[in-house]
Amino acid sequence: MYNFRTDMADERRDIYKKANNLEGEIPGIQTIEKASDENIKSSIVKILNEEGEKAIGKPIGTYVTIDVRNLRLAGEEELDKASNIISEEIKTIVDEKVNKQDEILIVGLGNQFVTPDSLGPKVVSEIEVTRHLLKYAPECVVPGARAVSAVAPGVLGTTGIETLEIIKGIVDNVKPKLLIVIDSLASKSIERISSTIQISDTGIVPGAGVGNTRKELSQNTLGIPVVAIGVPMVVDLATITDDCLDLFIGKLQDEARSNDYLNNLKNQDNYEEIKSALIPNDYNMIVTPKEVDDLIKNMKDIISKSINYAI
Amino acid sequence: MYNFRTDMADERRDIYKKANNLEGEIPGIQTIEKASDENIKSSIVKILNEEGEKAIGKPIGTYVTIDVRNLRLAGEEELDKASNIISEEIKTIVDEKVNKQDEILIVGLGNQFVTPDSLGPKVVSEIEVTRHLLKYAPECVVPGARAVSAVAPGVLGTTGIETLEIIKGIVDNVKPKLLIVIDSLASKSIERISSTIQISDTGIVPGAGVGNTRKELSQNTLGIPVVAIGVPMVVDLATITDDCLDLFIGKLQDEARSNDYLNNLKNQDNYEEIKSALIPNDYNMIVTPKEVDDLIKNMKDIISKSINYAI
Amino acid sequence: MYNFRTDMADERRDIYKKANNLEGEIPGIQTIEKASDENIKSSIVKILNEEGEKAIGKPIGTYVTIDVRNLRLAGEEELDKASNIISEEIKTIVDEKVNKQDEILIVGLGNQFVTPDSLGPKVVSEIEVTRHLLKYAPECVVPGARAVSAVAPGVLGTTGIETLEIIKGIVDNVKPKLLIVIDSLASKSIERISSTIQISDTGIVPGAGVGNTRKELSQNTLGIPVVAIGVPMVVDLATITDDCLDLFIGKLQDEARSNDYLNNLKNQDNYEEIKSALIPNDYNMIVTPKEVDDLIKNMKDIISKSINYAI
Amino acid sequence: MYNFRTDMADERRDIYKKANNLEGEIPGIQTIEKASDENIKSSIVKILNEEGEKAIGKPIGTYVTIDVRNLRLAGEEELDKASNIISEEIKTIVDEKVNKQDEILIVGLGNQFVTPDSLGPKVVSEIEVTRHLLKYAPECVVPGARAVSAVAPGVLGTTGIETLEIIKGIVDNVKPKLLIVIDSLASKSIERISSTIQISDTGIVPGAGVGNTRKELSQNTLGIPVVAIGVPMVVDLATITDDCLDLFIGKLQDEARSNDYLNNLKNQDNYEEIKSALIPNDYNMIVTPKEVDDLIKNMKDIISKSINYAI
Repeated sequence: MYNFRTDMADERRDIYKKANNLEGEIPGIQTIEKASDENIKSSIVKILNEEGEKAIGKPIGTYVTIDVRNLRLAGEEELDKASNIISEEIKTIVDEKVNKQDEILIVGLGNQFVTPDSLGPKVVSEIEVTRHLLKYAPECVVPGARAVSAVAPGVLGTTGIETLEIIKGIVDNVKPKLLIVIDSLASKSIERISSTIQISDTGIVPGAGVGNTRKELSQNTLGIPVVAIGVPMVVDLATITDDCLDLFIGKLQDEARSNDYLNNLKNQDNYEEIKSALIPNDYNMIVTPKEVDDLIKNMKDIISKSINYAI
Repeated sequence: MYNFRTDMADERRDIYKKANNLEGEIPGIQTIEKASDENIKSSIVKILNEEGEKAIGKPIGTYVTIDVRNLRLAGEEELDKASNIISEEIKTIVDEKVNKQDEILIVGLGNQFVTPDSLGPKVVSEIEVTRHLLKYAPECVVPGARAVSAVAPGVLGTTGIETLEIIKGIVDNVKPKLLIVIDSLASKSIERISSTIQISDTGIVPGAGVGNTRKELSQNTLGIPVVAIGVPMVVDLATITDDCLDLFIGKLQDEARSNDYLNNLKNQDNYEEIKSALIPNDYNMIVTPKEVDDLIKNMKDIISKSINYAI
Repeated sequence: MYNFRTDMADERRDIYKKANNLEGEIPGIQTIEKASDENIKSSIVKILNEEGEKAIGKPIGTYVTIDVRNLRLAGEEELDKASNIISEEIKTIVDEKVNKQDEILIVGLGNQFVTPDSLGPKVVSEIEVTRHLLKYAPECVVPGARAVSAVAPGVLGTTGIETLEIIKGIVDNVKPKLLIVIDSLASKSIERISSTIQISDTGIVPGAGVGNTRKELSQNTLGIPVVAIGVPMVVDLATITDDCLDLFIGKLQDEARSNDYLNNLKNQDNYEEIKSALIPNDYNMIVTPKEVDDLIKNMKDIISKSINYAI
Repeated sequence: MYNFRTDMADERRDIYKKANNLEGEIPGIQTIEKASDENIKSSIVKILNEEGEKAIGKPIGTYVTIDVRNLRLAGEEELDKASNIISEEIKTIVDEKVNKQDEILIVGLGNQFVTPDSLGPKVVSEIEVTRHLLKYAPECVVPGARAVSAVAPGVLGTTGIETLEIIKGIVDNVKPKLLIVIDSLASKSIERISSTIQISDTGIVPGAGVGNTRKELSQNTLGIPVVAIGVPMVVDLATITDDCLDLFIGKLQDEARSNDYLNNLKNQDNYEEIKSALIPNDYNMIVTPKEVDDLIKNMKDIISKSINYAI
């Protein structure tokens, strides 16, 4: 399979189309664009069948992508607008899967002590949980409220336990009807860092965004529907060096006329020799804006508001 | 049952003896004093049978108490010495329960965002977990190493889920042979705050120390032995006002000669009228040293070192 | 002087009146009550002359006190209302002292790593500073904006430098026209912890609230007006034991008829013998609600919003 | 001047030599290599006169560089060894400038809330300050101890005040004889992130490492000697793309034989067109290891130990 180096369905679609010189849609994939606003843009990528699944390496299902331009500089009003749009999308997907009062468990993946991996645990700490109130203090909850619980299970490196094992144990005991999982993703584009949200109904592979793929959390492994909310927090350094070389070869071809040697170079997936000279082997280098701390704070507020409102 | 307002077995023994004017040992309870050092003192309270259990309201089992004097001012050498002693006590109890290579799960109870309740999660973040290495990278572990995993499940108020439900789910999936649980306790004595460690082989009732009793974690509820490591982090304000009034009545009796009226007052368990005037109802007031942040840091280092070494 | 054990002008007034059996106002002191709301109550204590100053041990000036009931449970709307009222009071005092465009320096006192002492540094981190923008990027600021800067100088125990020395150095170089200082205070009342704001135009003595009195920050020492915003974060444990014994003696007198012996006891300022038995010498014990972390978060939001709006 | 994109004197020397095809030493610059150890390597770059200063754009003075290999994986013993070597170098420079009992002020530059910029404030919080003890509690200090104080003044973006203005104010009031400044630097090499220390006697330009150059802290501006301890925490993304293209052009030249067109490309300092396509304008992109949080913790321990021991 092509090495996509991104968890975003729309980026994978674009990469696949470019690599295969496709003009129209990929067979088995359908795209719907929505223009909400000058600053907020959303689109839906639907993977309809196995052909689409095989092309871009993501499971059959719906992937909603919402881009918020200039989130870093957004005022309170714009943050509210973004929350509302995201909230609607979450509500749509949740309402398709479960009834109004069905219990939901929110899971925040990632390591709270590593800034670009801390979004999940931070969102969880802002979720309004009600499950214990319904049981011990029902007078504190509006009648008909849904039971909501929330956990941040930590990461394999600090617990020694696969996230799936922990979550499976909790699901078996708590018996929610739906899981909402929040995680950090990898993107191809620096501009999307902490500015884009992908909502899907297909579950998630924890750690994919930060280079440590783990067992998937999905209906297959857990027996209940899993809605995934992912936000790109990092771009792999190798993505940048690849793009840099692609742009450069393109420039050489434009100016010095194409030649077979350069074409040949471009068809190699990556340029191991150069990258191994640049990137020390035992490090996991990431590219991130210096202001990532602020960006995460805004994104955490948006997502926790969206979820609290949607459910 | 007498309202002990302490989780420490040795304090309950003393309170019971005083209340019942006992000179010798309580039937069903046995005490062994150990004088390790000028600054470190340890003792063992054994609850031998139901009679002892009923007297002080703690389950049958062994409770080791280690007091470290002036922990706040202790140098590196003294911290090491304390770690060694605690480590030996943990090792003794663990070795009684499981074999050298049996898998152990460490559980840090409490809310990491509330300083006096954060000891458990802080210790967990320093535990050397090996379970995932044995599975994915056995070359990184010394041969014969024990599988160790560690979780901080959060508290009912933020997850909506009983700690027992979360831990039961994890135990069922991970299948450790022993649990070591770290939690904050309540004590009667200000001097013991973050300076005393109680190690027991009887499990634990989460939240007992901070006024929110939950379902117990024990062999009864989890099916495997549970070693509990607890540290007093708070004294209930009601304890202080009670002690204050007891001392005062004692003083009045000494000076003005005893009289029935005062004796009668002293036999009332507490002085609800006075306390309700002092302590607002909907607050959970605690007494804590201003320097509790530093004390917790030292205690976290001692306990995590002790556990890492013991297992 | 009477040992007031509180930094709140209104509490000192009440203590003085009670101790001297005064029915009306203390000479040299004037009080104005304002009832804003069911949940928010404010009052002004004016110390008019040296007689008033001597009576309650606070310098001549105006002390506005705002009590927010149930701040811990307050919703967003109530927090906004509290912010507006506090903001108006700050604006009134600031406008009396300086012109609309005069430069202001905000100073957050206290130790950010000790929860009940961290309010000042936390507020400072939310202040919208403009001084550097006016100099380097005037296009980012609305025309006519005031220059605002903000520092958290740390505490003597961690810097080794008196707060006054640091602030004096900065004032000499930055040359603001007014200082606004935020600090933690001590109160007599548990209910006021993180729920009451005292605003005064008289400067402040850093650390008074947590038992380490330092050199005052005031017009006398700095040469510019100093507005102080203080919030009670702790109650001294000795205050509680004193109150406990006073209530108890009162109860004994009511029930057993007064007698000289008890009256005599009550006239002793405190009960050293009892307290020294309860409170270990080398500890600085404080009484604080377990939820102090949440309370500080709400209070930080209120005060930073109030200041940002007022100036 | 050449755009060095690094604060490290030894890297600038190498870049200058390569750019000018120099075999031997740059006139006005002298280098001394020291091989301490398999894992720790140190060297000294001396800028002797204005010719050297002009060549590499750093002021006349001594720059000691210490590289610790694999700091991330270092055990306690290796951390101690690194501390000792760094401590010796700091001691040598400090002893040249001031007498044994002369007062020293430690300044931690950077923003404690932005992980790769937080080294300075974190080191300051571990410094053993004595200045206040000498004044208020001389019995707590060994006789002959030096007065040490420490501040973390914050950054322009959060205080609104130039760091130089704050420090100048404090120096004028506190009157230390020497300043030791700790800051984050930029390097050309990913491997040096949080693994290399540069100690110089020439002062420092705050923020140079993270793209916001401010007024220098030096003997010129403060009137007392300024020892700077800097650690590379980030690599500018533009550095990586430049290196990537240089390596690629070199490869093309090797394989396809040199040609004037490529040579010409390589002489351009950078490749604005490509980079502007890769790097969004209003972001300050940095490259950092995912584990930067751990690396900073180790480095903070090393530097604070080194300073505490050296002075």
